Formats: sequence, structure tokens, C-alpha cells
Amino acid sequence: MPMNINVERVDGKEGFTVPGFTANGVYAGIKEDPKSDLALIFSETPATAAGVFTTGTLKAAPVLLSMERVKGGKAQAILVNSGNANAATGEQGYRDAVDAAAAAASLLGIDERLVLTASTGIIGRRLPVGKIKKAMKRLVEGLRTSGLSAAEEGIMTTDRFPKMALRKTVIDGRTVTVCGLAKGAGMIEPKMATMLSFLLTDAAVDRRSLAGCLRRATEKSFNAITVDGCMSTNDTVIILANGRAGNRTLRAGSDGLLRFDEAVLSVVTELATAIVRDGEGATKIIELTVEGAGSAGDAKKIAFAVGRSNLVKTAFFGKDPNWGRVYAAVGASGVPVKEEELEIYFGGIPIFKRGRGIEKADRPLLEVMERDSVAVLVRVGSGPGSFTVFAADLTHDYVTINAHYHT
Amino acid sequence: MPMNINVERVDGKEGFTVPGFTANGVYAGIKEDPKSDLALIFSETPATAAGVFTTGTLKAAPVLLSMERVKGGKAQAILVNSGNANAATGEQGYRDAVDAAAAAASLLGIDERLVLTASTGIIGRRLPVGKIKKAMKRLVEGLRTSGLSAAEEGIMTTDRFPKMALRKTVIDGRTVTVCGLAKGAGMIEPKMATMLSFLLTDAAVDRRSLAGCLRRATEKSFNAITVDGCMSTNDTVIILANGRAGNRTLRAGSDGLLRFDEAVLSVVTELATAIVRDGEGATKIIELTVEGAGSAGDAKKIAFAVGRSNLVKTAFFGKDPNWGRVYAAVGASGVPVKEEELEIYFGGIPIFKRGRGIEKADRPLLEVMERDSVAVLVRVGSGPGSFTVFAADLTHDYVTINAHYHT
Repeated sequence: MPMNINVERVDGKEGFTVPGFTANGVYAGIKEDPKSDLALIFSETPATAAGVFTTGTLKAAPVLLSMERVKGGKAQAILVNSGNANAATGEQGYRDAVDAAAAAASLLGIDERLVLTASTGIIGRRLPVGKIKKAMKRLVEGLRTSGLSAAEEGIMTTDRFPKMALRKTVIDGRTVTVCGLAKGAGMIEPKMATMLSFLLTDAAVDRRSLAGCLRRATEKSFNAITVDGCMSTNDTVIILANGRAGNRTLRAGSDGLLRFDEAVLSVVTELATAIVRDGEGATKIIELTVEGAGSAGDAKKIAFAVGRSNLVKTAFFGKDPNWGRVYAAVGASGVPVKEEELEIYFGGIPIFKRGRGIEKADRPLLEVMERDSVAVLVRVGSGPGSFTVFAADLTHDYVTINAHYHT
Repeated sequence: MPMNINVERVDGKEGFTVPGFTANGVYAGIKEDPKSDLALIFSETPATAAGVFTTGTLKAAPVLLSMERVKGGKAQAILVNSGNANAATGEQGYRDAVDAAAAAASLLGIDERLVLTASTGIIGRRLPVGKIKKAMKRLVEGLRTSGLSAAEEGIMTTDRFPKMALRKTVIDGRTVTVCGLAKGAGMIEPKMATMLSFLLTDAAVDRRSLAGCLRRATEKSFNAITVDGCMSTNDTVIILANGRAGNRTLRAGSDGLLRFDEAVLSVVTELATAIVRDGEGATKIIELTVEGAGSAGDAKKIAFAVGRSNLVKTAFFGKDPNWGRVYAAVGASGVPVKEEELEIYFGGIPIFKRGRGIEKADRPLLEVMERDSVAVLVRVGSGPGSFTVFAADLTHDYVTINAHYHT
């Protein structure tokens, strides 16, 4: 995780709150289990908004709706449900998403176009809009400054723990807060590796700078993790900035923008690594850095080839310092690499260098493999390109979780 | 498997022999277990040769050597060992491959440049050339027409059964034989998903047509299978054609070329599906066809996105007709697909059509999911592009086999 003295990490017990934002989560009856399944995040004033969405070509209805609305640059509420993805539901699904959002807007007394939507859950079933509308009054009446934890509960599916992070930093002499919540790649009920994250800040930021910041931060965090290489129809990251902190609006060239970028990156990196750690059946996180590539793009290609390799993932589950599989995955990435320039390190210990790898693992290396987080460094030359991915291992529990759910 | 009345499939019990070829396999002590680990295939006269090799950028020494030698268009012997991949071994590894091949050439009394090499096994350890040379006399003296089964034993690693196929067809009034042997993606000891296959025929074929035929057949067979999406440093397919059948040499435009293509494709398809069926821990084979794409390339992209998806693979292991995961994988392929044109069939039963999927599986569908081979059809439009991949499911045994080997 990037550490920076400019950004103060705030612990959960101090409460996850952001000036000008309220939130809530309730059980609306979308899930069969009586677990919270509907969440609302509300900004007291219209906020600057930006989003990053699944790049899959089959997008769920709430994604299509949010993509359209976020183009306007403003939003004031995010309505999220778990238990039903509203995906593969065609035009009916789109109308259902619009309806649910309109119900929220009406009770909130705001323009319905300022309501963004996100869903996660089972795909191919109609969104139970009736149930959602029925729960809306309770949801809106319970909105409160301290309600972000309740909202997080409403978006969780098979997550084993909530994923929230908060940072404070000073810009223009004003304390600025950035808070994020996320749900990970749990799949038993939803059957989809949907990743949702919502970021809230009281900073004043112009639309373009906010979108750029979100794009950069997502690239290094949510787009740099791999649990099982599967992308969902519903993946959504949204940021709302309501300007309550009173700083001069951050824009291209602003002094404070770099600091704001750091705070956002720090929040999303914490959330993204928490998602990997909570990956289905995962026992450890592999922090895999590729250095010395010709470009960042090449480094990313190699890093994902290694991080997605089932052979590498199972070796880490088995605590086996099997560098041969890393070597083979680098070769399979398609990026030209010279064997004599390749170096592989596990936990800082060199295991392949100058064309030769170790034949037997010694005690320090075996100890590295016991850790629940292993840093793998792959140096492929002396180029300027580097990239880090966070990967989960592949375990029996992954197979159990994903094989033994029946439709 | 393509069925064709022109091509006669011959059963193993009639013996795997090809006129003009001899073969043998022995235990040279490369593996720790006393199991056959050295094989030799010999053509009594120099044969026309072509090869297809791993496209990975880190190639094992025997691959580099064979790639170089096959450019000459002629070969007379293939020396193959299991138990050691001679990969990640640098220049020393290349010299070792040359040495081993030279030892075979000397005893066979042929030009050393006519000996091709292939290896599979543990990577990063020096090839035990001394042991190989010591066993060479035994290996050469035992060469016999009926020795292809012995050669197959010598190249197997964790394969649960031998993979051999033979077809006869008539060209120019002459009976032509095509025989193939292969090893699959077993990995416990070798730790690599190496795929090796050697095809032998007595047809007379010119170099260019032989290379084209091998390329086309490989594309539809070995390049259309996915066990775990991992590519090896050692993947090798070689074909030798010695012309003993006495047909007029097949060349571009020859009447018999199409028939020869069919025979080769039939052999490699049988071998490729056998490799999937024997995939580590696999319980079933998913025969996945994508139709109606804009191009064959698009169809292949979609087919592999689905066939490589761990979520799809685990669902099939769990016998769960989870079309949502297939739907999501199609969307994640990056190829634009319209939901309303998408159709998904399992075992011929429509489960997603006109923007709607089934909500509950009925008995016929559940019976399809019980089969050890399930045909999945994904129709994405009305374009001319189609492609079929053969995928293994992802099981507990896959994780066990690959996690619990310790270096």
C-alpha cells in the first residue's frame, strides 16, 4: 500500500463519515436470507460525479443507466441493491432500474437524473421493483451521517468482512476526507464476480480532474487485482465530490490535486487488496511487481499473465516456491523477454538470476511461502515500465464455493 | 470429432505401425521412478518435416534446436525425453540438446542435423546427457516397427492413459497411413503443462503443403483445447512424411491433399480431445462451439473467453447449468455481442434466447449436465465466423495435483 505522510489513515472505530453525506442500508426482501440488500448513499447537495464501469460488452441495466447519467457530471444519490444483478434482463431491466431510481428521487425530493444505480446478485431474473419501492420509505427515513457502514452491509454478498477505508488530508488549509466502500468477488449466491465500489469526498474538484483521478486510481487498484480473471456484467466504481470542505476547486494544475490523488489512491488500494484477501477461498495474497519492461503496458501484460496463471496460483496455495511456473507464465505473456536478463525474487530472495534458478528451497524461502502475503518481483530488463498486481491463490475452497452452488 | 467416410479409423489393438518408421522407448534414469523416460522415432529414409512450436517467448533448448533444424525441411529421427524439460538452462542447455541428438545420430548412422529433439519435465535443471548417452545403444538397438507404443510410454508424464491415434485413407490408389502420439498436460513431476505430439505418415507430401496441413490441423485441435490456459516453454508438434506409400507427391492443388488434410485433422482431434479428457483432475469435457460471429477470429476469442473461465469450469464440475457465467464470459471477451441476438444451448437445449434465460433447470437439462462430455453452443449473431474449443472442467483434483507438489 502506498504510504504517504501527507495522507492520514483513519481507523474504522472513529466512524466512517464524510461531511455532507448520509447513507443507509435495509433488508428489502430481494435476498432469500434476511440480510441487508438495499443501500442508499445521499449527498445533501448535488455532487460532481465520475464513474468507471465494466468494459465487458454485455452490461447490466443499472450500469447502462449510470453510464448515461454520469455523463452529465453531477449526481446526488446512489441506489444499490444486492441479491439481483438486473443483468441479462433486456429493456424491461432498464425500465426497472429507472423505476427504482425514480422512487428514490421522489422521496429524496431531487431530480431523478441525479440518482445513479448499481446492482449485484443473481443474473437473468427480473429486479423485484415492488419490494424495492416498498422498502424505500424506510431506507430514506433512516439516512444518517453514520450510515455508511449500514450501506456497506447492504451491498455485501458473500464477503467475509466489510471493506471500507477513509483518509484525511489537508488541501488549501482545509481538511478533506475521502471515504470508500466496496464489495468483493464473492459469488455463491450472486454467481458473479461483481466488484462494486463507491467513493465519497467533501473535496471540491472539477469534473475532468475527478474523472482523471478516478481513472488513474482504478488502473492501479481495482484493475490491478485478479481473483479468478473473471469480469462481471455489473462492475462499477463511482466517486462523488460534494465540495463541502471549502477548498478552492481542484482542477488541472492545482497544487492540491496531487495530494487528493494520493488520498484516493490510498483508499482504493486498501479496498482492492481487501477484495483479494477476501477472494473466494483465498488463503494468501500475491503482490506481484514486474519491473524493467519496455513500457508500463508490457509490464502489466506480464504481471497479469503470471497473476492469472492457475499453475502459479495453486503453487502459492501449496506453499511451493515453484519459480518454473512463474518463468513459464512470463514466457507465455507474449512480451519478448531475454532469459539472461530475467530475475525472479520471492519475498526479496533471488530464485532465478543470470539464466539459472535455484534447485532446492532453503529455510528462509520456505518461511516466505508460509506468509499470508508474498511479494513476488519479476525483473525483465532495464526498461522504465513497471506494474504491480495483487492476486489471490487458487484453493480447494474456490472450487467448492463455485462448483457446489446449484441454480 | 470430424467423421469422414474417406478416412478409416484403425483401432489400437491392430497395432500402431507406419510403413518405414521404427520406434522405441527405454528407462534412462532421468526420472526418479523407474518409468520409461527416453524415446526415439526413426524414419528409414529422410522424411519431409514440419513443426509447430510454443509461441511463448521463453523457449526451451530442444525447441530452439528443433525450430532451427526443421527449417531445412528434412528430418529422420526425433529424440524425446521426459523427466527434464531442459528449459531455463541457457546456452549449456542448448549444447546438451545438441550433444544428445549427436549421440543418437552417430548410432543411427545419419547426419546429426536430421535429428529433432523435444523434452518435457522439471525445468531449470541440467539435462543428464551422460545418462541419455548411456541408454542410447539400448534405445537404438530396440528400434522396431511395433515400437510406437513404447515410444509413447517414454514421453508420458502424469498422463493417465496413452494417447495414440491412427487413420488410413486411399490416395492415388495407395493406402496412406497417418499415426500420431501425444502427451498431455500432466504436471505433478514435470510441473509444466507441456504438450508434445508427433505425427508420422508414409504419404509423399511436399514441404509447403505438409507445413500448411500441420498448421491448419493444429489450429483446430491442439490450439483449440484449454485445460488451464497455461502454455509451456516446451510445446512441440512435429510431423514426418517419408513417402513410402508411393503416391504422387501431394502439393498445392493435388486432388489427394484434402483427403490427407482430413486424415491428419482426424488424428490430431482424437489426440487433442484425449488430452482434455486426461486434463489434470478433469471429470468432463466441454465441447464449446461459437457460431454466427463476424469472423473466425472473433468466434475463437469468445470461445476461449468462455472455455478459460474458472467460473464456467467450476460450474460444469458442479453439474450446474449456470448460463449466467457463460453469458458473463461472452461479455468479457471484448467482442461486441448484442444481447437480443445471443443464444446459449447446453446439449442442444436452449437456455438463453431472445434476451431471456431459463430460471429453473428441468430434468432433461440436469441430465445433460451429468454427461462426461457436454456440447455448449453459443450463437452470437448471423455472421460467418465459427470456432470450437474443447475445455476441461476445474476440479478439486486439479488443485490437489498442482498445489501439493513440493520442489
